[in-house]
Amino acid sequence: MSDYYTIAVDVMGGDFGPRVTVPATLNALKRYPHLSAKLVGHQEAITPFLNKLTADIACRVEVIHAPDTIAMGAKPSQTLRNGQQSSMYKALELVSEHKAEACVSAGNTGALMVLGRYILRTLPGIDRPAIISSVPTVSGHCYMLDLGANVDCSAEHLLQFAIMGSVMTQAVDEIASPRVGLLNIGQEQVKGNEQVKLASRLIEEQGGLNYIGYIEGDDLYSGKADVVVCDGFVGNIALKSSEGLARLISKKFQSSFKKGIYRRILALLASPVLNELKKQMDPSRRNGASLLGLQGIVIKSHGSANKKCFGFALEQAVAEIEQNVPRQICREIEDKLA
Amino acid sequence: MSDYYTIAVDVMGGDFGPRVTVPATLNALKRYPHLSAKLVGHQEAITPFLNKLTADIACRVEVIHAPDTIAMGAKPSQTLRNGQQSSMYKALELVSEHKAEACVSAGNTGALMVLGRYILRTLPGIDRPAIISSVPTVSGHCYMLDLGANVDCSAEHLLQFAIMGSVMTQAVDEIASPRVGLLNIGQEQVKGNEQVKLASRLIEEQGGLNYIGYIEGDDLYSGKADVVVCDGFVGNIALKSSEGLARLISKKFQSSFKKGIYRRILALLASPVLNELKKQMDPSRRNGASLLGLQGIVIKSHGSANKKCFGFALEQAVAEIEQNVPRQICREIEDKLA
Repeated sequence: MSDYYTIAVDVMGGDFGPRVTVPATLNALKRYPHLSAKLVGHQEAITPFLNKLTADIACRVEVIHAPDTIAMGAKPSQTLRNGQQSSMYKALELVSEHKAEACVSAGNTGALMVLGRYILRTLPGIDRPAIISSVPTVSGHCYMLDLGANVDCSAEHLLQFAIMGSVMTQAVDEIASPRVGLLNIGQEQVKGNEQVKLASRLIEEQGGLNYIGYIEGDDLYSGKADVVVCDGFVGNIALKSSEGLARLISKKFQSSFKKGIYRRILALLASPVLNELKKQMDPSRRNGASLLGLQGIVIKSHGSANKKCFGFALEQAVAEIEQNVPRQICREIEDKLA
Repeated sequence: MSDYYTIAVDVMGGDFGPRVTVPATLNALKRYPHLSAKLVGHQEAITPFLNKLTADIACRVEVIHAPDTIAMGAKPSQTLRNGQQSSMYKALELVSEHKAEACVSAGNTGALMVLGRYILRTLPGIDRPAIISSVPTVSGHCYMLDLGANVDCSAEHLLQFAIMGSVMTQAVDEIASPRVGLLNIGQEQVKGNEQVKLASRLIEEQGGLNYIGYIEGDDLYSGKADVVVCDGFVGNIALKSSEGLARLISKKFQSSFKKGIYRRILALLASPVLNELKKQMDPSRRNGASLLGLQGIVIKSHGSANKKCFGFALEQAVAEIEQNVPRQICREIEDKLA
């Protein structure tokens, strides 16, 4: 791979569109001198944000006109028929045509999944792509997959997820032998549903991974595993339930500190500490979920991402390009499953 | 049902056995003058705790000798063969022989499930019992089922859970028409795995429930539903993941308030508020999960329950006896599924 690389940005995606995605991309271009960007979206919506570019940046930006935008609420299945003129479609196409090394979008997740799979195809040996994202732990973070791309998974799919997750963690976090855990409702061999029990046997037999066995929900955040594997239904519900409880704790906390003047003063005094804590736990700091298993790099940003937060998704894309994650997955799958 | 009722207590179950379970039961007898208790366990382990009883309490206590105890780590399937002399087995038998209206145990959950099903049988029309427990929400609490009894559920099972959960919430919380939600990864009809989509149709067609449709993981704690239905695999992982995140937040919080003397003083000043908050969120305050769908009332306490906490499980038993929850479920199932 050359030292120069290009990201195709679906600038229309997300709640804020070009207002967020274009300035975030320009910032990334400043940070990464070897990076070029193809801004895919409605030309008229993009150009107002391209004033006052320095020559150095301007020469690394290209606008690719796409008249349509896929709505956040659009049915993923319909985007195959109706989405061909959309910014998301065209951004993915740039990757399939080798005109960009990665696509970053804050758009409709389901559509990105469907279009990504259709346009880029899965890697040989991979049946289904999976969504992987980092999750905070006591000691830092771990990666969890799948987070919602696949609601009905077989044991073989879970094995593929385990291999892909391990490869990505190895590449991006530079951990030599990531500890891979399978999410289950107990740690004993007899526990769990049929797919999980079978998947555990497959991962063990496969032998090439640093498999630490089952881990329970409460160990998701304990730092026990570097990669946590589960089906997309369970993964989505585990993460969202946790978010829900965090929100409940925060609400109870706020109302506790509003009872009376003394408590209000305390809250005021404690606010720098609380803000620091909030920052540490902020999900936007781990923005940038990857769609692993495709013949190309696709990064999904939160729809509600602000400029800084969209920047994290771009950083994730750069890290995966630099490590050529798809090629590494391909090799491991050939090596381990052939 | 007579105004007088009896609970069979498996006093040997849990991490602390009779040391916790017997005093907790004696306290409950003081609170509920119509309650009698059969203390099931090893006689020699129980009698030391029965000194100095007032005549009023003494006449409502009976010790039922059971020489064996089911170990917390025992394989549930083996307890059917080897557990017949155990306190758990004998406590459940008292319910099946109509010598007690409910059984309360802090013992091995899997064993309680297997023995409960074998000794008490499921209610007509119910294929599988489910574990239900309350979960804190912004506005109070909701009930969630199943929490781990059934790892592979069909849509019909989820429908039965919905009916049972609705009945219990109606009876115990006196809510006329509990809002029932189905846990899923999105709110649109097309989202979710096959069982959940089919279950949603079944619950809708069934018509008799106040079904509010899908709810996502983050709405578990928002108070949107009074009853949340899911399979035991998902339910267990949702709750445990949330617990894990709460622990992570608490750890980060503590370490944030340990950096420097000023923050330590702040933490000290804030400690009454934090303790109040901790109390509000304390899972032991919602101790007492019910095994719904059996021909009898069975309440599972946390294994680590202390005296006060085991008392909540006894209270739950009293509430379900007073409302005769199994009979109500039976009626609803006949009414709705016949």
